[in-house]
Amino acid sequence: MNSDLPIGVFDSGVGGLTVAKEIMSQLPKESVLYFGDTARVPYGNKSEETVIAYSRQIARFLCSHSVKAIVVACNTASAFALETLVKELTVPVIGVVKPGARTAARITKTGRIGVIATNGTIKSGLYERYIAGISPELRVFGQACPLFVPLVEEGMRKDPITKMMAERYLEPLLKEQIDTLVLGCTHYPLLTEVIGEVAGPSVTLVNPAYETARELGEMLTKRGLRKQSDEPATHRFFVSDGEEQFRRFANTILPCELVETDVNRKVFA
Amino acid sequence: MNSDLPIGVFDSGVGGLTVAKEIMSQLPKESVLYFGDTARVPYGNKSEETVIAYSRQIARFLCSHSVKAIVVACNTASAFALETLVKELTVPVIGVVKPGARTAARITKTGRIGVIATNGTIKSGLYERYIAGISPELRVFGQACPLFVPLVEEGMRKDPITKMMAERYLEPLLKEQIDTLVLGCTHYPLLTEVIGEVAGPSVTLVNPAYETARELGEMLTKRGLRKQSDEPATHRFFVSDGEEQFRRFANTILPCELVETDVNRKVFA
Repeated sequence: MNSDLPIGVFDSGVGGLTVAKEIMSQLPKESVLYFGDTARVPYGNKSEETVIAYSRQIARFLCSHSVKAIVVACNTASAFALETLVKELTVPVIGVVKPGARTAARITKTGRIGVIATNGTIKSGLYERYIAGISPELRVFGQACPLFVPLVEEGMRKDPITKMMAERYLEPLLKEQIDTLVLGCTHYPLLTEVIGEVAGPSVTLVNPAYETARELGEMLTKRGLRKQSDEPATHRFFVSDGEEQFRRFANTILPCELVETDVNRKVFA
Repeated sequence: MNSDLPIGVFDSGVGGLTVAKEIMSQLPKESVLYFGDTARVPYGNKSEETVIAYSRQIARFLCSHSVKAIVVACNTASAFALETLVKELTVPVIGVVKPGARTAARITKTGRIGVIATNGTIKSGLYERYIAGISPELRVFGQACPLFVPLVEEGMRKDPITKMMAERYLEPLLKEQIDTLVLGCTHYPLLTEVIGEVAGPSVTLVNPAYETARELGEMLTKRGLRKQSDEPATHRFFVSDGEEQFRRFANTILPCELVETDVNRKVFA
């Protein structure tokens, strides 16, 4: 395997850019090949079967472009499809759920952890299982927040209505006196301000992106896959719809400035 | 053409059931073959190209099951793909935009018409063009309401947050003193109560489903395609994901009770 190849990162849409950003910042030499499935977003309400089928298509597409590793930067896809991808692909694959679970388990003092995520991720019970696997004494309280993704996508990140929804979603978790809250969907770190206000200072927010990028770096080092060449990193982006809208959104998040030719369309027929 | 064949009806998801319901009620002898693209819902933010590609796939699938006509029961698909389908298919195809525009033009007294719809439908400008084509003196005010679809899908049809969103979306239209409001997305009739409260008694709501079913009946009669046999109507449903969730939703809307075998899955690979 050529260690100068890019890292493949995919998500149902723009949310995974929060993970790509963290990779670019922690591993600045590495190139990223990003795929956002903007034509079929959101994944959060789709069945396991459908999420696996879509993830498989995308992972194969990334492999056809020669990547040295794949990061599943979508919690729903990580919850439903990671095992399948690990089995089927020859490149190493990591998801965001395990790193998020591990961080939460390390941070909590009271052992009471909240997880907010999509319907699919919550139903999968994967955060609960991972966290219980780390220590059976930890208590996990899950809450699906299906409206957060459309609110982010509609640019309502700091809107009073978003805050009202956050209050409603977080109420049962706050009643359980959690001290740690996992942002278990890659869109949610974009709502950190509102979620932080509602959760209050006694709750620590966990963004799995940071830990995911850290684990990615360790894995690459262990396998001798850290980039050797001194060429600057070059990032490329594919989306299944709306290149221009994606580019504008990406430029509000990423540390680099994307130009038109950086974002291309790939449609699965 | 065999006039005993079913009528094909398709939508991005469950919204088109409001049109199917109207067809079943106005043309009770006719059988319906419904397709809901629940794996790829919503269509409202997708590009014209993608909506055309998806609509074409679905229309061909319906034709492969022998339908005598197709109703595009989705405003976004009607706005973007109707022309293409009419050109490419041999069966007659009708959409929901023209019937909605015609009803609004007939009902308005002041000539000031509001249209609420998805981003895609509003951007297409199709309601404006149709209504201007009926009479250039009519004024049309369009407003995209992208959060209405997720709010309906999350079961928040009568929620205070839905009402707040409705107040925000309708404010600019009410300032323009509209007297008629087209519900230009098949999900929106499910919000009639909240939208009606916010719009007030001086605004008449137009649900294009009623007029669409009426036009369908006229078209079938004109072409000699009204069902002749006395067999009772049999309705069948295909979805691209989540059969069970779809069936539960359909049973809250349709006049008939769907059992498990009535709803099947069709995945476009």
